[in-house]
Amino acid sequence: MSGEEAPAQQQKSEEQKQETKANEEPKPETKQETAPAADASAAPAATEKAPEEEVFTYRSLVLSGYGGYDKVKLQVKKGMPTLKNGEVLVRVKACGLNFADLLGRQGLYDRLPSPPVTPGLECSGVIEALGEEVTDRKVGDKVLVLNRCGLWQEVVAVPASHTFAMPDGMSFEEAAAIPVNYITAYMMLFDFGNLRPNQSVLVHMAAGGVGIAATQLCKTVKDVTVFGTASASKHEAISQGGVTHTIDYRTQDYVSEIRKISPKGLDIILDPLGGSDTHKAFNLLKPMGKLITYGTANMLTGQKKNLLAVAKTWYNQFSTNAGSLIHANKSVCGFHIGYLDGEYELISQVVAKLLELYSQGKIKPRVDSTYHFEQVGDAMRRMQERNNIGKVILLTEPKKEEEKKEEKKEEEKKDEKKDEKKDEPKSEEGKKEEN
Amino acid sequence: MSGEEAPAQQQKSEEQKQETKANEEPKPETKQETAPAADASAAPAATEKAPEEEVFTYRSLVLSGYGGYDKVKLQVKKGMPTLKNGEVLVRVKACGLNFADLLGRQGLYDRLPSPPVTPGLECSGVIEALGEEVTDRKVGDKVLVLNRCGLWQEVVAVPASHTFAMPDGMSFEEAAAIPVNYITAYMMLFDFGNLRPNQSVLVHMAAGGVGIAATQLCKTVKDVTVFGTASASKHEAISQGGVTHTIDYRTQDYVSEIRKISPKGLDIILDPLGGSDTHKAFNLLKPMGKLITYGTANMLTGQKKNLLAVAKTWYNQFSTNAGSLIHANKSVCGFHIGYLDGEYELISQVVAKLLELYSQGKIKPRVDSTYHFEQVGDAMRRMQERNNIGKVILLTEPKKEEEKKEEKKEEEKKDEKKDEKKDEPKSEEGKKEEN
Repeated sequence: MSGEEAPAQQQKSEEQKQETKANEEPKPETKQETAPAADASAAPAATEKAPEEEVFTYRSLVLSGYGGYDKVKLQVKKGMPTLKNGEVLVRVKACGLNFADLLGRQGLYDRLPSPPVTPGLECSGVIEALGEEVTDRKVGDKVLVLNRCGLWQEVVAVPASHTFAMPDGMSFEEAAAIPVNYITAYMMLFDFGNLRPNQSVLVHMAAGGVGIAATQLCKTVKDVTVFGTASASKHEAISQGGVTHTIDYRTQDYVSEIRKISPKGLDIILDPLGGSDTHKAFNLLKPMGKLITYGTANMLTGQKKNLLAVAKTWYNQFSTNAGSLIHANKSVCGFHIGYLDGEYELISQVVAKLLELYSQGKIKPRVDSTYHFEQVGDAMRRMQERNNIGKVILLTEPKKEEEKKEEKKEEEKKDEKKDEKKDEPKSEEGKKEEN
Repeated sequence: MSGEEAPAQQQKSEEQKQETKANEEPKPETKQETAPAADASAAPAATEKAPEEEVFTYRSLVLSGYGGYDKVKLQVKKGMPTLKNGEVLVRVKACGLNFADLLGRQGLYDRLPSPPVTPGLECSGVIEALGEEVTDRKVGDKVLVLNRCGLWQEVVAVPASHTFAMPDGMSFEEAAAIPVNYITAYMMLFDFGNLRPNQSVLVHMAAGGVGIAATQLCKTVKDVTVFGTASASKHEAISQGGVTHTIDYRTQDYVSEIRKISPKGLDIILDPLGGSDTHKAFNLLKPMGKLITYGTANMLTGQKKNLLAVAKTWYNQFSTNAGSLIHANKSVCGFHIGYLDGEYELISQVVAKLLELYSQGKIKPRVDSTYHFEQVGDAMRRMQERNNIGKVILLTEPKKEEEKKEEKKEEEKKDEKKDEKKDEPKSEEGKKEEN
C-alpha cells in the first residue's frame, strides 16, 4: 500500500470539530465538545468558534494516544477532503476491524502513524467524486477499499488503485470484511504456501477473520485437510465452515493432537501467534513444509499493552539460518499486508481472483457482528477478548434513536459494575479466551 | 532417501579385493592389490588369499579417507550384493557427479557415512535381479536411481522405490544426469518457488548441473526471465539453453547488474553458494519473493578442505527471524535432496513429471563429459575447477584398450609437470574459475 496518502488525508480536514468518548453518543448537532479527550494532544479544538452553515462535516474515529479502548474517539471533522490526481472520494458505509488496529492502539503497529491518527485498513462504500486522471471508476460505483490506515471515517480520499469494484449481491458489510483477511489468507496459501490437493494446513484462530477466510480458501482445493484451533464453543461453527479437525487449544496440546492424526507433520502452517508458537510450527512441518508467520497475536493479552507478553513474544521470536533450513528442507515465510507498500498491482490480481471466487459462491465472508462508530470500544473489546466468530464490522451510520432507547433500557437493568470493568485492563481475560 | 540402506550395502560385499589409485588402471584379472591405499583404514584386504574362480567381483569407487582427488580409489569388491525385501539389483552403466560428492570427499557432507565408503547419489543401469516383494519392476528394466550414497559401483542393491523407469530414447548418460539436478531444480522452482508466468529467477552457476536443469524448467513456464551467472566463456552456451540475461560474476557485480534490469528485484533466487551471497539474495528479492538456498559451494575452493573458506562461509551464514520476514514479506527456503530421507513418494511424483517433460522434449540433460571409473579424479577436478558446462558423468565400463593407447600417446607428449600439479591443492584456481 502506498500508505503515504494516509497521514496526509488526516490533515485534509481542517480541524477536529467535536469529540466524544468511544461508547458515548456524539451530538453533532450541538457542535460542542461533549467529552474532552483524556489525552491533551488530541483536543486541539477546545476553543473553536461555531462553524458556518455550509461547512461540510463528517464523523471520524481518531486514535488520540496509545492505550485502552477509550483512546479511540469519535470526532467530527470539518471540510471535504480534497482529491489529488488519481484519487477518488468514497462515502464509507462499513469498515473492518483488524488485529493491526488493536496492536496500533497499543503502539505496537509501526505502520500506523503517531496519534492523533485515524486507523482503519479496509472499508466499503460508494464513490462520490473523482480526482483528475481517474478513468476506470465512476461516481456511484460500490467499492471495497484497502489502505495503509485512515479509513475509519465517513468519507475518505484514496487512490483509485486502492479501490475494487464490489460484485453484484455483495453487502457493504461483506465487502468491508474482504480486503485484509482474504488477501492475507489467499497470498499466504496460494503464493507462499503453494497449496495443492491432498495437503494439510494448520489454521490457528480458525474462528477469526483470517482463520475463516483461510479455511474457505483451503476448501477450494481438492482434499485439503484443515486443522483448526479455537475455543470449544466455536468448534461447531468452524466445522461447518470447513475445518476437518477442530482443536481446543485451551484444553489440548495442539502439537500432540496433530501428531496423533498426522504423525509426519503438516504441509502448511499459518502462524498469527508468534513467539514460542512459531517454533512449534517449524517443528511440526513435514519435509518440504512451509511455515507462514503473519502476526504476533501472543503480544495482545489485554486492553492495554502488556509489557511482559510483548517481551516474552519478542524473546521467544523464531529465528533460523540457511543451514538449518537446508537440513530440514523447510520454508519460512513472513507476511503482513500492511508492509506490502507499492504492491497494488499484485494485490489487485489477488482481489480479482477473490471476487471471482465470491461470485462463484466459493467464499463468503462471515460477519460476526456490526457496531456503529460510537461503539468502537465494544467492537475492539469483542475482538480483543476473542469472542467473535468471523469479522467484526464498524458502521459509519449513526445509531438510530430506537436502538439507543433499547440499549438504554438494557443498560439500566445492569449494575454499574460493567462500566467500571470496561476500563480495567483485561490481560488475563483476553489471554484465556483464544490465543 | 531412506539412506540407511547405503552403509549396509557397503558391508554386503565381503571384502575389498583390489585397490588402485584413482587415475591408475585397475587390473581386475590379477586380483591382487596393485596400489595399497595411503589410508590404512581403507586397506583391510592386505593379507587376503587368492579367491576362488566362481566368486563374483565388481568394480567400486571407494572414498578411503577425507582429502584430495586421490582419496577416491577404484577397488574390486567380491561377492554379489544380497537383496533384502523390496530391493533390486542394478547393473550400473553411468553415474552422476555432484557437489555433494566433492564436499563429501573433504568431509563436509554429513550425509555420507565415514570412510571407507562408496559415494554416489545417482546412477542409471539395468535391473539384473529382484528381491522379494518387488512387483513393479522386472529384470531388464532400464532405470535411473537415486540413493543416499553408494552408487558408484558396477552393481548396487537398492530399494525398488529408489529406481524409476527410463523413458524411451533416453541414454544411460542422460538418465544418470537426471535425479539430483532435475529433482532439485524442480522442487525448488515448483514446490518452494511456486514459479508462475512473468516472474524472474536468478540462477547462479547457470552452466552447472542444477543451473542447466533450472533454466530448462524455467522455460516451461510462460515469459519467465532467467538471470544466469557464469564465467564469460560459458555465456553462449547458457544463452542457448534459455538464460535471458547472462552475468559474468567474475567481472561484474551481479547485484547491480540485476538491479539495472529489474530495479524492484526478483521473484525467485536459487542460491547454491551460501555465505554472503545468501544475504545478497535476500536483499535482492521483491516483496513476496522467495530465496531458496541449497548449498555452500563457497566452501569449495580447491581440492582439499580450505578451512578459511569453510569458516568464512559459516561465519557469513544467512540468518533471519520471524519479524524480519514479516516486515519484508519474504520467504526463505532450504533445500537439499540428500536430507529428503523417507520422502520417496514425493520424489517419485516429481520424477514422473520430469520424465514426462523429457518425453515431451521440454527438458534434456546436457552431458558435459564422461569419465571412466579409473578417471574419477579427473572428473572431480573438472567439476571442482568449474570447467564443465552441464553434467559430469562417470562410466562403470573400463576404459578400452584403444582409448588407453590414445591417451598414453597424448600423455607422452606432455611433460611430467601435469601429473605433479594434479596432486597439489588448487584452492586458488578453483576459486577463480566460477563461484
